Amino acid sequence: MLEYSESEASPTAARIGAFREELKRRSLDGFIVPRQDEFQGEYVAPYAERLRWLTGFAGSWGLAIILQHKAAIFVDGRYTLQVAREVDTTLITPHHLVEPPPHSWIENNIAKDQVIGYDPWLLTAEQVSRFEQSCAKVGARLEACENVVDTVWTDRPARPNKAIEVQPTQFAGRTSAEKVAEVAGVLEKEGADAVVLTLPDSIAWLFNIRGQDVRHIPVVHAQAIVHRTRKADLFLDPIRVPNDMQDHFASVANLHPPRTFVAALEKLGQGKAKVIVDFSTVPQRVCSSLKSSGAEIVNAPDPTLLPKARKNLVEREGARAAHRRDGAAMAQFLHWLDVNAPKGDLTELAAADQLHEFRRATGSLKDLSFDTIPGAGPNAAIPHYHVSAQSNRKLDNDSIFLIDSGAQYQDGTTDVTRTVIIGRPTAEMKDRYTRVLKGMIGISTIRFPKGTTGSQLDVLARAALWSAGLDYDHGTGHGVGSYLSVHEGPARLNKTDRTQLEPGMILSNEPGYYKAGNFGIRTENLLLIHEPQAIAGGERPMMGFETLTLVPIDNRLIEPSLLTEEEIRWLNDYHARVLKEIGPLLEGADLQWLQNACTALRK
Amino acid sequence: MLEYSESEASPTAARIGAFREELKRRSLDGFIVPRQDEFQGEYVAPYAERLRWLTGFAGSWGLAIILQHKAAIFVDGRYTLQVAREVDTTLITPHHLVEPPPHSWIENNIAKDQVIGYDPWLLTAEQVSRFEQSCAKVGARLEACENVVDTVWTDRPARPNKAIEVQPTQFAGRTSAEKVAEVAGVLEKEGADAVVLTLPDSIAWLFNIRGQDVRHIPVVHAQAIVHRTRKADLFLDPIRVPNDMQDHFASVANLHPPRTFVAALEKLGQGKAKVIVDFSTVPQRVCSSLKSSGAEIVNAPDPTLLPKARKNLVEREGARAAHRRDGAAMAQFLHWLDVNAPKGDLTELAAADQLHEFRRATGSLKDLSFDTIPGAGPNAAIPHYHVSAQSNRKLDNDSIFLIDSGAQYQDGTTDVTRTVIIGRPTAEMKDRYTRVLKGMIGISTIRFPKGTTGSQLDVLARAALWSAGLDYDHGTGHGVGSYLSVHEGPARLNKTDRTQLEPGMILSNEPGYYKAGNFGIRTENLLLIHEPQAIAGGERPMMGFETLTLVPIDNRLIEPSLLTEEEIRWLNDYHARVLKEIGPLLEGADLQWLQNACTALRK
Repeated sequence: MLEYSESEASPTAARIGAFREELKRRSLDGFIVPRQDEFQGEYVAPYAERLRWLTGFAGSWGLAIILQHKAAIFVDGRYTLQVAREVDTTLITPHHLVEPPPHSWIENNIAKDQVIGYDPWLLTAEQVSRFEQSCAKVGARLEACENVVDTVWTDRPARPNKAIEVQPTQFAGRTSAEKVAEVAGVLEKEGADAVVLTLPDSIAWLFNIRGQDVRHIPVVHAQAIVHRTRKADLFLDPIRVPNDMQDHFASVANLHPPRTFVAALEKLGQGKAKVIVDFSTVPQRVCSSLKSSGAEIVNAPDPTLLPKARKNLVEREGARAAHRRDGAAMAQFLHWLDVNAPKGDLTELAAADQLHEFRRATGSLKDLSFDTIPGAGPNAAIPHYHVSAQSNRKLDNDSIFLIDSGAQYQDGTTDVTRTVIIGRPTAEMKDRYTRVLKGMIGISTIRFPKGTTGSQLDVLARAALWSAGLDYDHGTGHGVGSYLSVHEGPARLNKTDRTQLEPGMILSNEPGYYKAGNFGIRTENLLLIHEPQAIAGGERPMMGFETLTLVPIDNRLIEPSLLTEEEIRWLNDYHARVLKEIGPLLEGADLQWLQNACTALRK
Repeated sequence: MLEYSESEASPTAARIGAFREELKRRSLDGFIVPRQDEFQGEYVAPYAERLRWLTGFAGSWGLAIILQHKAAIFVDGRYTLQVAREVDTTLITPHHLVEPPPHSWIENNIAKDQVIGYDPWLLTAEQVSRFEQSCAKVGARLEACENVVDTVWTDRPARPNKAIEVQPTQFAGRTSAEKVAEVAGVLEKEGADAVVLTLPDSIAWLFNIRGQDVRHIPVVHAQAIVHRTRKADLFLDPIRVPNDMQDHFASVANLHPPRTFVAALEKLGQGKAKVIVDFSTVPQRVCSSLKSSGAEIVNAPDPTLLPKARKNLVEREGARAAHRRDGAAMAQFLHWLDVNAPKGDLTELAAADQLHEFRRATGSLKDLSFDTIPGAGPNAAIPHYHVSAQSNRKLDNDSIFLIDSGAQYQDGTTDVTRTVIIGRPTAEMKDRYTRVLKGMIGISTIRFPKGTTGSQLDVLARAALWSAGLDYDHGTGHGVGSYLSVHEGPARLNKTDRTQLEPGMILSNEPGYYKAGNFGIRTENLLLIHEPQAIAGGERPMMGFETLTLVPIDNRLIEPSLLTEEEIRWLNDYHARVLKEIGPLLEGADLQWLQNACTALRK
């Protein structure tokens, strides 16, 4: 039901046609169109939705390569179903990101002496280096140039220009001056003079500022240069800074108009500065400006990533408060759902709206942290389902409803998924739900020593599914910011991530199971990594997870015989804690519902 | 009791003195002395025990750097206790391999314009490249030269020169011609002309030959060049090849005296050949000969590693037979131990000898697969304990005895550890033993999809220890060869290994717990990875482990309340299988003992 209907013309053909005309005019044989914008964050503003405009693909990561007679789009495992729905595959062939990767595709599809263009603001230094190698292999050339989409896309929306806000120390826990000093300390240690930052959440965190430049994520689009002198240059349109905020920057940053950014890079080069650039997150254009003007470039990780991920004590306390508030709203919603879903007329969109309403009623909601994913029946089997007026399904009786949602509060970002049954579950649903829950508990209860990485723990979320010949094709968890990005690096729980887990990091824990065209299950809590703690009778202190999310888990979908005593104990302890912490925020029928939902499960 | 006694003079001082005189004579400021020989295998022959001769350190991996006024030896976590016992630490300072790594130590301890020598046959290309970078950083120079130890060590033993043997296809499962053709296929795919091999087990596997060049591991010391033409050159003293073996090589390899190896490399270079060299396993000297003569070198993994690790069906059947035979010998030994240990006079050496005797009595024993580790009481807490006349302890009552041992049979290599109680265990022993067992079962029972690596599974062996604030400082498992090396790459079960697990690989599964000065526990089975198999009701085929080792696990050390029902079921099923498969090989009191040892455990 999500395909283009035949009566509806896809605009892609006309756009690709115009794009190819422009390629010809410029004597290019092809052009690379990534999803990313010039800040390289996960989320882009409407003016930068070039990939979506050109191809129709709306996912959060993708990259197209348009040649004169062939075109390909590369997406990751989250989007392989979606891309086939959204893109006119007669014009553009979808590929999974690694089979083959885009640079190998280039090798196999371009000829000697051909010229492939790209916008050096939109690809990272790392990406360009890979594409350059591939072009060199076949004797072709990669050429930085003006963006071809920007020439063809005549009605592009304007850039964001809303006023920014301060994230006060009361919520941030540390002043911007302290953070800049920490980054300057890294520069000192590395013997570098400066670091260039463009990642929107790095900048929002470092300067304790928030904005509305992209949907749902309160980042600010700007560029920054932090100097070893503990001073920073921030490239941000001055009209976006309210008068009463000038003081906020006084001691840490000089503000400059964004158009002066390149000149500032060149000034670093002219001074022969040694400059840290994270090749995996900074546009190629930053490197080429630095290099051509004489700077020494050091490729090293963005120095804000780890301190941002390790939440300080104020941010941890904020996260706990945000999750109590959000848990109460979720409980009201789940109660409302239990009452209204069985009536038979409820739709996905109505459910999502009602949840939004409960969150708004907390009086603290700044925004949702992403578009709510309200999957009814078969729609729940699409992990990154985007509901629309067309896709909007009714919640049927005897079916599963999966709702993945989150909120931005000034004290913390939430992200929670619950899967509930409307009517009666099948034995298969209960089996799958319980195996997913076993995985979620496996991660929640593990203790681990210093040095442990997410790729070591991931199996705990999957073992119960694997043993039944099942799996899910997404990571188990991602980092979450503090009133910032709901997907935050550098640590993740998945099969490959090698970032060491550290105290203060907040990670999601969200195993799932998806039966395409039928039903889907995901249960997600956010976890806060606690400091290494001694264990009675033990020898080595161990880290572990504190569960932040406080929302009942649907016991009606559990097959108790599949749970161990320890797992049942965890579940009952969790529900007792939910009742204790959320109960005081509820009353009347809501509280009664919560008491019932938190009843201990017996084997 | 393991330290040098005061009356016993260490020879190290005199040797280091002579070594430094020689350094001076050659105008060197230092010299690097690794454990490895020119074949880069794990095991070296007596003539190549340079590190041990010079420093006293007898472990299987180590590297010393001797400067005029300072000396350091680097060992890994297995050997940090041993190195302190064996090395005169007033002369040579021991370091853990990564704190700091040897190349960083060089940076901090040598000065501008100094010259550090090394033997280019004994360091890999990868090692040399790291040391070169470190020397360059401080303006010093790394220089390939004759080995300084070889000049000073005047009574070096001779090189091995015993006749080699054929490993017949009946046990190898594939002819040497088939294997050489497979390697040639890799060369074709990579567009390379040849590959140079020096790893002893790569060569033994590829040519289906075995020898007695090092203790316990039936490898042959030789070098080989495999050409894309499906022909190979094997550099091996012709007098070591019996007349009746000439046919064995006829269709696959030309034999050459080892002294012609360098000339053959240079010939490749003169022909501008593209040559694959595994920089991590091949001596620097191979690369420099190839490079200086004009070859194009490609650094790629040794193409025999994966096919060797993936045992074919004949090798798998051989492994099963070897483990039944070995399990029966182990059962006889454990019975004998139960009878004799309580008498109070049994020593570690006597126990090891008796086990050797039971293995010899099978009539199939070629060799032990390593020196038996028979740890009584506190000696069990030393993971890589080497028993000697000095260290030899009696097996006390109410104490733990750990025995790690293995055998070389022509159809397979075994490696098994069992920990047993003599008398009564303490509650702490039972707690630790049971947690180690939970880990062993966690690995044994996991099912996993294609693409899974050892670092993803390792946590399953540790979770029960971590939850009690405990851990062990070694990997969980290593690969095992087929009548070859008992430590075989490339796949491992540990915190970091990223080699994909594949059907046919044999891995050990040996979690442990060590309480220094008190007791130690390790339980080890070998596992064979089976092909992906469908699971009833599931969607994706899953690999898994078949347990090869068939030896009772000491139920007297188990605290049943710590085991889940599933774990108890695994244990009882395992013992039922041991009885069924080993029982027919035993009789009388041995069989009675086995029946008792395999009694089902109840919670």
